[in-house]
Amino acid sequence: MNHSNIDMKYAVFVIQCPDQKGLVSRISTFFYKKGFNILHCQQHTDIAQNQYFMRLKLDLGCLSSSRKDLERSFEEFGRPLNLEWSVHYSDHIQRIAILVTKSSHCLYDLLLRQQGGEVSCEIPIIISNHPDLDYVADIFRIPFECFPLNHENKCRQELEVRRVLKQHHIDLVVLARYMQILSEEFVKEYEQRVINIHHAFLPAFKGANPYQQASDRGVKMIGATAHYVTADLDGGPVIEQDVQSVTHEHSVEDLKQIGGDIERNVLARAVKAHLENRTIVSNGRTIVFSTGV
Amino acid sequence: MNHSNIDMKYAVFVIQCPDQKGLVSRISTFFYKKGFNILHCQQHTDIAQNQYFMRLKLDLGCLSSSRKDLERSFEEFGRPLNLEWSVHYSDHIQRIAILVTKSSHCLYDLLLRQQGGEVSCEIPIIISNHPDLDYVADIFRIPFECFPLNHENKCRQELEVRRVLKQHHIDLVVLARYMQILSEEFVKEYEQRVINIHHAFLPAFKGANPYQQASDRGVKMIGATAHYVTADLDGGPVIEQDVQSVTHEHSVEDLKQIGGDIERNVLARAVKAHLENRTIVSNGRTIVFSTGV
Amino acid sequence: MNHSNIDMKYAVFVIQCPDQKGLVSRISTFFYKKGFNILHCQQHTDIAQNQYFMRLKLDLGCLSSSRKDLERSFEEFGRPLNLEWSVHYSDHIQRIAILVTKSSHCLYDLLLRQQGGEVSCEIPIIISNHPDLDYVADIFRIPFECFPLNHENKCRQELEVRRVLKQHHIDLVVLARYMQILSEEFVKEYEQRVINIHHAFLPAFKGANPYQQASDRGVKMIGATAHYVTADLDGGPVIEQDVQSVTHEHSVEDLKQIGGDIERNVLARAVKAHLENRTIVSNGRTIVFSTGV
Amino acid sequence: MNHSNIDMKYAVFVIQCPDQKGLVSRISTFFYKKGFNILHCQQHTDIAQNQYFMRLKLDLGCLSSSRKDLERSFEEFGRPLNLEWSVHYSDHIQRIAILVTKSSHCLYDLLLRQQGGEVSCEIPIIISNHPDLDYVADIFRIPFECFPLNHENKCRQELEVRRVLKQHHIDLVVLARYMQILSEEFVKEYEQRVINIHHAFLPAFKGANPYQQASDRGVKMIGATAHYVTADLDGGPVIEQDVQSVTHEHSVEDLKQIGGDIERNVLARAVKAHLENRTIVSNGRTIVFSTGV
Repeated sequence: MNHSNIDMKYAVFVIQCPDQKGLVSRISTFFYKKGFNILHCQQHTDIAQNQYFMRLKLDLGCLSSSRKDLERSFEEFGRPLNLEWSVHYSDHIQRIAILVTKSSHCLYDLLLRQQGGEVSCEIPIIISNHPDLDYVADIFRIPFECFPLNHENKCRQELEVRRVLKQHHIDLVVLARYMQILSEEFVKEYEQRVINIHHAFLPAFKGANPYQQASDRGVKMIGATAHYVTADLDGGPVIEQDVQSVTHEHSVEDLKQIGGDIERNVLARAVKAHLENRTIVSNGRTIVFSTGV
Repeated sequence: MNHSNIDMKYAVFVIQCPDQKGLVSRISTFFYKKGFNILHCQQHTDIAQNQYFMRLKLDLGCLSSSRKDLERSFEEFGRPLNLEWSVHYSDHIQRIAILVTKSSHCLYDLLLRQQGGEVSCEIPIIISNHPDLDYVADIFRIPFECFPLNHENKCRQELEVRRVLKQHHIDLVVLARYMQILSEEFVKEYEQRVINIHHAFLPAFKGANPYQQASDRGVKMIGATAHYVTADLDGGPVIEQDVQSVTHEHSVEDLKQIGGDIERNVLARAVKAHLENRTIVSNGRTIVFSTGV
Repeated sequence: MNHSNIDMKYAVFVIQCPDQKGLVSRISTFFYKKGFNILHCQQHTDIAQNQYFMRLKLDLGCLSSSRKDLERSFEEFGRPLNLEWSVHYSDHIQRIAILVTKSSHCLYDLLLRQQGGEVSCEIPIIISNHPDLDYVADIFRIPFECFPLNHENKCRQELEVRRVLKQHHIDLVVLARYMQILSEEFVKEYEQRVINIHHAFLPAFKGANPYQQASDRGVKMIGATAHYVTADLDGGPVIEQDVQSVTHEHSVEDLKQIGGDIERNVLARAVKAHLENRTIVSNGRTIVFSTGV
Repeated sequence: MNHSNIDMKYAVFVIQCPDQKGLVSRISTFFYKKGFNILHCQQHTDIAQNQYFMRLKLDLGCLSSSRKDLERSFEEFGRPLNLEWSVHYSDHIQRIAILVTKSSHCLYDLLLRQQGGEVSCEIPIIISNHPDLDYVADIFRIPFECFPLNHENKCRQELEVRRVLKQHHIDLVVLARYMQILSEEFVKEYEQRVINIHHAFLPAFKGANPYQQASDRGVKMIGATAHYVTADLDGGPVIEQDVQSVTHEHSVEDLKQIGGDIERNVLARAVKAHLENRTIVSNGRTIVFSTGV
């Protein structure tokens, strides 16, 4: 038996506040008194910022009141402690839109993981600025919307994309090698809800053609970075990174293939962490709690 | 400022018990009521075994009673919950004995890390069955005791070793490439207080000459394993492991050199985890809590 | 421009013989005199076995005679040097049969890499003992043959499998999580032409359920091994291995997911190395030449 | 028995030239006719630059003429092929100067590897701008020269350093955490003979305090880079790199400790590659041939 039992409903509270005495005791006691079983409790203190972070996973089977009541009650409890918090329920399946251009490897990877149950979400829509990957959407029977870009329609095209996102009640936007910069408005609307995969070990090799840059610079490892998208291009909070060794023998084409394997794994880990509410962004950095029960 | 501030005294409680509702709340509230600030709280639930594990780091500056009182009080508190627990105080510097044979790399590594303050402990004695590494002990001005072995004196030699360990009030025995099997009595006396570095990725390549075994088998990675020593040779609970890629070009000699680098890092990480009371052995496995503040 | 230019035809000679003076000179001069451009030359000497290994990649554009003539001529040249050799032409696309049971991740991965041009081969048939993955074959429009197994038909089923392999002129059999042991006759017929992916870091955790074994043993890394299949179960020459760190927090289910990512990458690298004629088996070990131009 | 047998003398030829037909044949035949046994032959073709690179290891026991004669003869042979080349004899033990400031870990590491025979060289002098590490030099009985720096004596100090390097006939200068920028004259005098360890994964986090930079940026891996020093600070050709995973839990102090382990291993591998004449710099990148026999 596993806590993540499919029939068990649970809630995840993600909390941050100024560090102060008694937080663990007070917060855990709040839930204990309500009759909850804490399945998992993770925390972190950023000493430099004097900030406290907590992730609590609760067995919802013990919930005696309504969810609204629970939330109201916790809000009241948290006010004197200056808690910022959010709660996520396991029976609310998040809805992801995947944005792509021409590369299929990250798209396939996410779709297969979702199909295999490894990543728990719905994927109601795939959006692209190119028609190339329509056939992949077809295989998985997911609607595909193509909004081509030219020199004049950048703004209008993005509005179309955002309209479709709204229409599908999208919780998380995944840029799975979508080679376009998003506007500030877009980024603001989906703050900490847009994840991008950059095909380099950031902050090295920002911008275009990182594998060519890596080859030119003669580095001995290449990598990939999944990060939340902010107005600062390639500067958003890092969620996951990984690298692999390469040598002088590897051509740029080789680097792309090796890099592709890193990209898809890194992106999948980041999306999974986000969907499991294991990430908190603070001060430009991402706290990523480990895979818990 | 860092929680691990040299002037700050703290206590670490390491706790395990059958999983039950309200543990976080009850335990954290116990300490909160005593006026303690919880600096760090880590936990794990082994669902298959229905067992709960916790590591709590407390600011001792808040201790209003004596340590004995605190312990008595916690003992009483924990009895109905069936807590097994231990407490460790930061001003009790643990005493390590390093046992070696002829290889110096792990010995040097531990001594340098201790000297540099990376590993917090005292090393009052180095013990060997060979005189070769006396000069290293000399450099660091640490007493060196040599108890040579022959076909007849195995038992007596070990008794000598144990006598010296007692004499120096040793808390932890580190087998830094000590190529001898310990008796069951020895292992029992220092249960979960003897750490060995095995020069292979266990459970592959148990026993003697693992690099030769690895070369013969043609594996593409070699590794090292730090584990607590039990009566089952090379079968004790794993604390740390790491590996590195190798190719057909590497001779057994190359494997030894590459492996040596892995060994020293893996052993140091394991010793550090033990000294920071971040390890709990349960059911033949080791829970290793991550580096916390 | 790249040597592996799609329009360029090339030949790869894979050679082994007892080590002796002048091999590089004599062999390279043989080809130089025939007017060949050597695109890449890799070699290895196994000193313990006194055996020499060479891989030569030649521009076939320079071939002035027939291939048969070239081979006859090289055979004659090599006889006094006791050369064992084989030659592979880039315009002979190898034919792979993929054998599966129920897991789809390695199958998808190989199919996608083949589709994307990363792995150069034809995949005319997918064979299984279960009907589950028929739909994957369908997506890629590849024939799928299902030969179910029961307690009585083991031998007959395998004969069916071998019949289909012959019918499709299969060069390489890939066991992409095919959970069946092959008979000695099968293995002999396809010597060094059957690659298996074992879901553990061999020689650790041979046999069934390696992730459960790894969890029980409490190892801190899990891995996967691609190897040529021999009569010795899980004992064949290793081609590729990789691992990833895990902790006490990972359930067996987590290990399977993490392991799945390692498996598919390791298997793909092994298949690619084989198809590019970069592997030579000798004395139970595999020489794997690095990715060359 | 191993080719690197201590009693065996050998020569390493490192060659580069424009790519052209027949190079392997012509060069290997040159040595074959002189009666040499080629112990190892490695090569690389940079297709974009149309440049060919070769490393040949020859058994000197077969040398029938003087070394001067051999070199003259090879010079003559190579002229029509436009060969640039150098030759290195195993009985010429290279002389290293280690430059340090206050960190001891890389210094100790190199000294211990040299002492253990893993790195074959002489270390006649350790130079610093601070007196702190004098005691390490003492332990290994190596002269230590301290040239303190202040705001006015930068140029004069460097001249002193260079004077000492000349006086000790230094072949290779290793900056083992020497926190000073070298002048263009210095760099030019020791072109491709100064190796620096930078405590970050270049080109990320150039300049000062890279661990603080890494912490501020919130990256999930930290690394180290060994490179040849050029006039372009932190921009020289990379020889070796490695990284390790970190999390939000690691303080800057933790990063320094983890990073220190990476630094010493990366620097040692780079120094070893250089001393074994396995590196060739071309077009701002370093070809690093694998560990050969």
